[in-house]
Amino acid sequence: MNAPLPGHVLPTYEPRLVPAAMIEALKARFGDRCSTAQAVREQHGRDESPFDVPPPDVVVFAESTDEVAEVVKLADAHAVPVIPYGVGSSLEGHLLAVQGGVSIDLSRMNRVLAVNAEDLTVTVQAGVTRTQLNNEIRHTGLFFPIDPGADASLGGMSATRASGTNAVRYGTMRENVLGLTVVTASGEVVHTGTRARKSSAGYDLTRLFVGSEGTLGVMTEITLRLYPQPEAVSAAVCSFPSLAAAVNTTIQIIQMGVPIARCELLDANAVRAVNRHDKLTLREGPMLLMEFHGSPAGVQEQAQVVQEIASDQGGEDFQWATTPEERTKLWTARHHAYFAALQMKPGCRAVTTDTCVPISRLAECLLDTVAEADAAGLPYFIVGHVGDGNFHVGYLIDPQKPEERELAERLNHQLVSRALRLEGTCTGEHGIGLHKMDFLREEAGEGAVALMRSLKHALDPKNIMNPGKIFHW
Amino acid sequence: MNAPLPGHVLPTYEPRLVPAAMIEALKARFGDRCSTAQAVREQHGRDESPFDVPPPDVVVFAESTDEVAEVVKLADAHAVPVIPYGVGSSLEGHLLAVQGGVSIDLSRMNRVLAVNAEDLTVTVQAGVTRTQLNNEIRHTGLFFPIDPGADASLGGMSATRASGTNAVRYGTMRENVLGLTVVTASGEVVHTGTRARKSSAGYDLTRLFVGSEGTLGVMTEITLRLYPQPEAVSAAVCSFPSLAAAVNTTIQIIQMGVPIARCELLDANAVRAVNRHDKLTLREGPMLLMEFHGSPAGVQEQAQVVQEIASDQGGEDFQWATTPEERTKLWTARHHAYFAALQMKPGCRAVTTDTCVPISRLAECLLDTVAEADAAGLPYFIVGHVGDGNFHVGYLIDPQKPEERELAERLNHQLVSRALRLEGTCTGEHGIGLHKMDFLREEAGEGAVALMRSLKHALDPKNIMNPGKIFHW
Repeated sequence: MNAPLPGHVLPTYEPRLVPAAMIEALKARFGDRCSTAQAVREQHGRDESPFDVPPPDVVVFAESTDEVAEVVKLADAHAVPVIPYGVGSSLEGHLLAVQGGVSIDLSRMNRVLAVNAEDLTVTVQAGVTRTQLNNEIRHTGLFFPIDPGADASLGGMSATRASGTNAVRYGTMRENVLGLTVVTASGEVVHTGTRARKSSAGYDLTRLFVGSEGTLGVMTEITLRLYPQPEAVSAAVCSFPSLAAAVNTTIQIIQMGVPIARCELLDANAVRAVNRHDKLTLREGPMLLMEFHGSPAGVQEQAQVVQEIASDQGGEDFQWATTPEERTKLWTARHHAYFAALQMKPGCRAVTTDTCVPISRLAECLLDTVAEADAAGLPYFIVGHVGDGNFHVGYLIDPQKPEERELAERLNHQLVSRALRLEGTCTGEHGIGLHKMDFLREEAGEGAVALMRSLKHALDPKNIMNPGKIFHW
Repeated sequence: MNAPLPGHVLPTYEPRLVPAAMIEALKARFGDRCSTAQAVREQHGRDESPFDVPPPDVVVFAESTDEVAEVVKLADAHAVPVIPYGVGSSLEGHLLAVQGGVSIDLSRMNRVLAVNAEDLTVTVQAGVTRTQLNNEIRHTGLFFPIDPGADASLGGMSATRASGTNAVRYGTMRENVLGLTVVTASGEVVHTGTRARKSSAGYDLTRLFVGSEGTLGVMTEITLRLYPQPEAVSAAVCSFPSLAAAVNTTIQIIQMGVPIARCELLDANAVRAVNRHDKLTLREGPMLLMEFHGSPAGVQEQAQVVQEIASDQGGEDFQWATTPEERTKLWTARHHAYFAALQMKPGCRAVTTDTCVPISRLAECLLDTVAEADAAGLPYFIVGHVGDGNFHVGYLIDPQKPEERELAERLNHQLVSRALRLEGTCTGEHGIGLHKMDFLREEAGEGAVALMRSLKHALDPKNIMNPGKIFHW
């Protein structure tokens, strides 16, 4: 059913289709919130990954933790797959129903359940998106910093251990999820963590589920850390004569311990795409897009240090975005980069890389990759959370041309091998999904993957939770 | 063999003594680094907890990961317990050989393996202590902030997910361990994590082992995040007319988002003990001991905000420690508080609490606890990492008086129940060990503990890794 794809071979999965009796039971229970319509199934069988596999057999729109538990109990009884679905923005095939099964759409679980501004915490249902959350809490003077490119759901962001542009200062989902409500593979409802900032109470179940990509249970409610909106915010763009100059500026900023809030790289191709998509007039060369948070004096101090470093590296055109409107425009453009770049080559899809290396290795990792990409001749763009040592190359391929996909995958593999040699990781924030299972083995070793597999077998003995992702059963 | 203790009943454990053949094998392999001497065994069968149980059967002083693996393989073959030992500073009975077994002493694995100053990371063997680490990296301009009261080993700190006075700004071991070398229960050597700052590569094995209290494997090497020594540091003590005033000052500091580096509470009893032990002349009332890190201007700014808040609450005697020597003296005294307090009542032991609550609940939690303790009439002291919502009450008991222990345990239980009602945790940083297993069930629920137990059964099917801790097999 899944023909091997050129360039990256998906394994053949045994179908485990949802039996008619179970579909009937779901329809009887959920009425028109249970759908087998082709269009609905197809919508839930796609994400931003370059894979095409058949859609799930049935989609259920859940409205509560208890409803999720009911669906999972049925799936457990019939031993069929369950795939949690947020907004469909995965880049690694997390949502693909490689063995069929039930897609549980959590987008209607979109309530902010409790804002505890006095403790800088909030509890949300898993379908709340990051933008919605920030809109709903704006009046409290607090914000939630984690911002992947897409307006992802907080459930999806927890599942992939997402980060984004603010992680260099505020950490990733790993650091910012305090607790979870989880429906386990047997349909039990379990709570992990508390609202306390720290705890030594037993195994860290919260962080075991964060990043588990839906393979251990369904996260339905999430308690998150919030941060006071900084008193002063200042954003700037700075152009550089070369990628090397931009990267070296970043390395020095981090090594000096400047508490920069955002430090993003765009290569000339990404700037060009963003200019066209968002009607901006940024100078089309390598660029750092930065933001500083703090007191007015603190922000000024940080900015001055950074300007000196940048200027030593030949940075010019330091342009400040001082009003909230200017800043929003700039960061919205940054968040559009992926989609903007896709539009540079109509009909294309992107093979997106996600390596992350120790900061001192960033220049070597990124510049060698650029040299390789240039030599290969495939169109590409680069955006990077370079303050974390994390960058993405998006290779733009024509899905009709197997040789382009193959080339992109080969470049991706070369980049991953380089990152691992430099003591980094194959994925900084997108997760393993279908796409990086071989890379995970290369990175973690057979022993560590065997441990992960033992955990999976222990918590999901029938392999019903998003099967086929992260590692082979 | 373990008579139930008054106040807190230890379960009866089935002895699983190390057979003579295995002891012979260990002696043949490790020579005088394998000891069955009574004094050595007793030293390794004690910690700072109030429990007395028989010591381990044999102690092995390991010098490498491979040696640890050899010992664990033997223990696996004979199905006998293995208990990793660092410096013996656990407060919760982690090191006690409740079923007998092998104590693996890691204190000779005390090498700093790789300082990567340019990446702000370091890799150490598990026996390195926090003080040793900071001494060895001082010349790099970097430091490692996590500082439990004892000069614990970094292995032990990882095992209990420790924190200390700097966690309010720098996080705990949870946030600061990047990767581990672990000997699994079957004696395999596995590496988790990389030197990258963030990763979405599969299950978060690093954080599963951090806080696992030796029950899933032996951590032998640890890669940690480091931080630039701040350009400016300023410490201050401030006395308050009441505990309420000190706590309310703390709450406001945190809610305003002041990036304070340390915010420690000492009650009058703790100040008195510290004065006597360290020959200081601090005013013997409730006190906050604070530290600010940043640029000179940033430190001044933070200090000014905090002084205003404190002064609104009636804080007085704001005394600044400006020289490194004065600061060291102050923080050394703070780190001595536990041992200083023990000396206030000769021959006593301490039953130490460790609750952590959301910051807005701190006043209620702490003040009700003080009222209860005062009414009970048992001597006590309080020290707290109050910026995190975490504080410790040490009830000083005469180990010969079962009624004192019983009273202390009852007060502890009342405090834990209160903290859980306030959405907090029974342990902020000391771990569960033998002492808080009932509390863990109360906090996490049977479902979550069942998940933890499944993980344990999957990774340690013979229950050889530090058995009897965290939960019952």
